[in-house]
Amino acid sequence: MKVAILGLGTVGSGVLKVIQENQTHIQEQIGEPIEVTHVFGETLLNLHNCDLSGIKQIKTIDELLEEDFDLAVEVLGGIEFTYDVHKKLLNKGVHVVSANKDMLALHIDELAEIANQNKVQLAYEATSAGGVPIVHNLQYTLRANKISRVLGILNGTTNYILTKMTQEGMDFNQALEEASEKGYAEADPTNDVDGFDAQRKITLLSRLAFNRKISVEKVPVQGIREVAVEDIEIGLEHGYVMKLLGLSEFDGKELEISVEPTFLPQMHQLAAVHDAMNAVFVNGNAVEETMFYGPGAGSLETASAIVSDVMEIAEFGFVPNRIPKEAATITDEFTRHPYYVRFNEEKENAQKILADLKLEYDVFEGNHAFTIQTNPLAPKEKEALLEKADVAAIYRITREDK
Amino acid sequence: MKVAILGLGTVGSGVLKVIQENQTHIQEQIGEPIEVTHVFGETLLNLHNCDLSGIKQIKTIDELLEEDFDLAVEVLGGIEFTYDVHKKLLNKGVHVVSANKDMLALHIDELAEIANQNKVQLAYEATSAGGVPIVHNLQYTLRANKISRVLGILNGTTNYILTKMTQEGMDFNQALEEASEKGYAEADPTNDVDGFDAQRKITLLSRLAFNRKISVEKVPVQGIREVAVEDIEIGLEHGYVMKLLGLSEFDGKELEISVEPTFLPQMHQLAAVHDAMNAVFVNGNAVEETMFYGPGAGSLETASAIVSDVMEIAEFGFVPNRIPKEAATITDEFTRHPYYVRFNEEKENAQKILADLKLEYDVFEGNHAFTIQTNPLAPKEKEALLEKADVAAIYRITREDK
Repeated sequence: MKVAILGLGTVGSGVLKVIQENQTHIQEQIGEPIEVTHVFGETLLNLHNCDLSGIKQIKTIDELLEEDFDLAVEVLGGIEFTYDVHKKLLNKGVHVVSANKDMLALHIDELAEIANQNKVQLAYEATSAGGVPIVHNLQYTLRANKISRVLGILNGTTNYILTKMTQEGMDFNQALEEASEKGYAEADPTNDVDGFDAQRKITLLSRLAFNRKISVEKVPVQGIREVAVEDIEIGLEHGYVMKLLGLSEFDGKELEISVEPTFLPQMHQLAAVHDAMNAVFVNGNAVEETMFYGPGAGSLETASAIVSDVMEIAEFGFVPNRIPKEAATITDEFTRHPYYVRFNEEKENAQKILADLKLEYDVFEGNHAFTIQTNPLAPKEKEALLEKADVAAIYRITREDK
Repeated sequence: MKVAILGLGTVGSGVLKVIQENQTHIQEQIGEPIEVTHVFGETLLNLHNCDLSGIKQIKTIDELLEEDFDLAVEVLGGIEFTYDVHKKLLNKGVHVVSANKDMLALHIDELAEIANQNKVQLAYEATSAGGVPIVHNLQYTLRANKISRVLGILNGTTNYILTKMTQEGMDFNQALEEASEKGYAEADPTNDVDGFDAQRKITLLSRLAFNRKISVEKVPVQGIREVAVEDIEIGLEHGYVMKLLGLSEFDGKELEISVEPTFLPQMHQLAAVHDAMNAVFVNGNAVEETMFYGPGAGSLETASAIVSDVMEIAEFGFVPNRIPKEAATITDEFTRHPYYVRFNEEKENAQKILADLKLEYDVFEGNHAFTIQTNPLAPKEKEALLEKADVAAIYRITREDK
């Protein structure tokens, strides 16, 4: 199979390296070589460890479209330009393997349609949770299940920052600085710390899990900039660990979906996912609960997902890309979550407000402002509380799994 | 697709239930119904929730072989009889989906060969770690990787017992009794507590991971009957959690493989796998590390794996079953493990012996007999220690992951 790699940054060079290093292993499995015949990119970054001999370097998309290859690996990033490139490649009749969550979260339904018309595959294991093969598991290994919930730590940068805040008591800015130094955060960390990266991933995963089209811009998102160490510490004293979670739940009709900082019970599998690692926890009506854990990013780690996709296409060829028929109805009405609430109010005031609203709760005792865990709240109850009381911090708590 | 279910115990009835309950969901995905046309079994157990109307009940294999169906789900258990049934079914030209680890660990290479000759599939996701889709992930989603290590909590009964011993200080017998009461242990628990169940599973998984034939009887196995709460507690004080681990490592030439009680660092992902849950941790040269977690047993949970296999065969038909060409060379020579050692010797004696053997170690201080953690030992060094010193307990410690 002849492969063109579009984009020669960290991930692109990882793809080249994995194909070259594991070539014998790859051929043993699929019975034919994977041959990188073209690379597309203006500059060649991070390629000091790769052998580019015999690979044609292409500088414009028009030139690339004239060339002969079977599959394109798209690791260019960006939205408008790449959206256009995908359409051209699919219409040329080549398979596309992409890691581009930003673009695919917006355009996957249309692109999958174009892929099907051209009888080629659009694969995207690497878009969500990097090296964790969650896309494939939602598509295949859990397919006997009606899936009811997807809960994911989907962004390595924020998980690294929250781990440092939790384990070492750093504040957000210190932890972000360390993440930048270690290469876990980009120069402009907005996409990560404000939750947009996770928002795109939970959108792509929920679309597969629940077989519904989802408009990414309708998915509520809250990042971790405002998270105070104080709340992490109070939570920890009471058995909770804070994670930035993409959460979606589906009852067969309506979808609840969001990204927000969330307290998890310390015994929950996801609470033990540290540093820049990612993991996705899935509930289904047969398997009950299952989790997939691994590296959320990295050159070779992401390439693991991409090259596995390439090998699958080499072995199986075109398999119709699954496209949801219906659009999701997004709501926040059918689930109830308990909340962690730290008040700016005096204890007596807060208690009076809670009594007026008829809310039940447990008090988190300790040497800090009045803080409680509520019983599960309906969205309107939460709104009413925020209207009546001066609240310093409020975070969702996930309901216990069995 | 017409399906016959062979075996009507806990898992068989789960398969029927998942197919019936999720029928609409199944058809949406694969475009055709899965129709259970036959059940084979002497008695109908646990079927109070299942609808058997329209399903033909067959009492002998000879009769079954005369019937018309496309795929057999084998959840009979047992070895000799089932081995024979598999051969007959495959030679009849029907696909087989099996949960039978005991039989397949012995005969998979031969049966896969027969399946290939008949252009049918032999699928066995449910054999290893129940509802955890590890077979599929080793076959497909991690396929770009050269896999170097598989580390698994593969038996729910022993993990339940060790969890009780660790969290509640129960001794082995108390914990086994509780496991029996809760339905996690069978009347004769030998297969589980002596490690044979895990031995079969690590054999099947390692065969896939490293593409080598493996003789299950050559895999060293040590169960948990002799594990003392005292050692669990000393380990815990020093940051280690005890698990019954199937471990295999492969350097491209030789294979180290075993099942034994092992101390894991408390921060290791597998240390947080509690009760009857299972998980498999896999290291590969691209993905570095990844883990798959879920229920190790249960009626619907195991059916999740089986029905997903059935759906995959319904969608893709025959895909050649991968059969390793070479047999594994099993060794214990290429890896070195640190060990936890509690002595019956007086401290001074033990220290003298360790000095004579030139072994380096850290002392586990505390109000207990002299106990150490060794530096990584070669097998001969471990043997020499056991020969010279009176050792009360010795357990492998896994090397740290990054």
